[in-house]
Amino acid sequence: LRIVVLAGGVGAARFLNGLAKIVAPEDLSCVVNTGDDIVLHGLHISPDLDIITYTLAGIVDNEKGWGISQDTYNCHQAFKNLGFDEWFRLGDKDLATHLYRSELLRSGRLLSEVTAGLCERLGVRSRVFPMTNDHFETWVKTDAGWIHFEEYYVRRGCRDEVRDVQFRGADSARPSPGVLEALTEADQVIVAPSNPIVSVGTILEVQGIRETLQRRRKPVTAISPIVAGSPLKGPADKFMLHRGVEVSPRGVAKLYGDFLSHLIIDYADKELTDDIASMGIEAVATNTVMRTMEDRVRLAETALATARHERFPTQH
Amino acid sequence: LRIVVLAGGVGAARFLNGLAKIVAPEDLSCVVNTGDDIVLHGLHISPDLDIITYTLAGIVDNEKGWGISQDTYNCHQAFKNLGFDEWFRLGDKDLATHLYRSELLRSGRLLSEVTAGLCERLGVRSRVFPMTNDHFETWVKTDAGWIHFEEYYVRRGCRDEVRDVQFRGADSARPSPGVLEALTEADQVIVAPSNPIVSVGTILEVQGIRETLQRRRKPVTAISPIVAGSPLKGPADKFMLHRGVEVSPRGVAKLYGDFLSHLIIDYADKELTDDIASMGIEAVATNTVMRTMEDRVRLAETALATARHERFPTQH
Repeated sequence: LRIVVLAGGVGAARFLNGLAKIVAPEDLSCVVNTGDDIVLHGLHISPDLDIITYTLAGIVDNEKGWGISQDTYNCHQAFKNLGFDEWFRLGDKDLATHLYRSELLRSGRLLSEVTAGLCERLGVRSRVFPMTNDHFETWVKTDAGWIHFEEYYVRRGCRDEVRDVQFRGADSARPSPGVLEALTEADQVIVAPSNPIVSVGTILEVQGIRETLQRRRKPVTAISPIVAGSPLKGPADKFMLHRGVEVSPRGVAKLYGDFLSHLIIDYADKELTDDIASMGIEAVATNTVMRTMEDRVRLAETALATARHERFPTQH
Repeated sequence: LRIVVLAGGVGAARFLNGLAKIVAPEDLSCVVNTGDDIVLHGLHISPDLDIITYTLAGIVDNEKGWGISQDTYNCHQAFKNLGFDEWFRLGDKDLATHLYRSELLRSGRLLSEVTAGLCERLGVRSRVFPMTNDHFETWVKTDAGWIHFEEYYVRRGCRDEVRDVQFRGADSARPSPGVLEALTEADQVIVAPSNPIVSVGTILEVQGIRETLQRRRKPVTAISPIVAGSPLKGPADKFMLHRGVEVSPRGVAKLYGDFLSHLIIDYADKELTDDIASMGIEAVATNTVMRTMEDRVRLAETALATARHERFPTQH
């Protein structure tokens, strides 16, 4: 059973943690958002690719949800000592990844090749695809002006209202090699519980990805990142409001409506099941809040189960 | 009293350690070898500039003689974990320097500007000049082929016989801005006890530096890095032998004979005083082995004293 997961960062990684326990690594591929990628100190940093790769490699810092476990921040501190405003915390072990990636990109290698190389060296047997090898950057307009998404997210802690969003480079970004084939051939595509605008929405902006999903005859299952009117994590609500979409699983269903077959929602939202069904999407209510590894595995099992049922009965 | 020191790495740093105790920082300038500079993982590393800058900033790792004190090596270890042959040990704190330098060089800044910026940020009030802003690399021919000097020195631990030496880029390397003026105007130029071929010899290869020293009317004092037939540190003997020069203060005097007024030699070599005098160079015998800070300060005092005496009496 070949599974492809559309993934952002931390939320997707939690879900993949469970999924990786029940799917053979070679049957699992991830298409990962690169709209957060940023160059700092000449280092090409790919926040979501790294979170996903470290998670699949079993070396992610589980407490923080990003970075490598038991990392130190001595380079970061030395930069601060040099008088720099270091708002992006780069771990010392993590730096090796950024140096490796930046060196190879400068020598002309593609981000997808670099990512495959990192996976191989870290013992990750699933495939990790950057959504694109092309330039693609998410920028956010705030009352302080246009800023890179990482600046919005990390430096300013998502505190600004979202006045506008730009996906810079989206017009010409093509999917990285193998992505459209993987999406076409997968027995199931799962949209991880990531921000539907700036994590999954970016992936859908890349040429041909949305159309490939629309053409699929097999299931596309999303897990709602919104529970009882709020995002489990991060600023999805601000981005959905800006887009004029209700902050609810119904809003998520609307954003994915043209290609989704199933939407997994939380028990807390189960009264929306019929509404979502009227949009042609099978809603499955379950516990979507992933506190323990058991929660993660059970959610992954529910996601896989949706693909095996023409119409999946709502759970209680 | 304006002092300019021609400096390599560890040996020069030990000497500067003492000199900095007795000379006002604004009266001290260093012209530093950049022949060891190397690009690794896209990082421009300047081993000697960093040793000198860290020493003057008081943050050098005194035990190792290079790097920053109490540094960690977690990035280095992470690179090894990725399967790389990491023969060059980069400390985590040290990385901030290399990232800063590489970023600015890529943006078009000159190495001398970057070095001045680092000095300012680290509170170093002496001037630290790279010998050149131009490409200059020392390569060594061994039985294993031509290798970069750092590969000879660090990776292979100086174990190879030196079959040939190339200063790549020397033909067109010009001194960095201010170097010739500093050498002309200095009340005293001191050649630190560094390798006379690959640390000081490189500096002398840069257009106009040797000629400027030859034209000086004021003292140029060297400290012999050779004591009783052996270098205090490093492979100076192998490079002197390859050059056909005796491994002794007499050999050092020969290499610097065209511009040197004084040579400080160790007591152990004091029988060479007359020989060196016959080359037109005043030899001063003292203790040149710098074990303690007291040794370093005393050697610095002796070096300064040579400039104040037409003929300096040999010490016993």
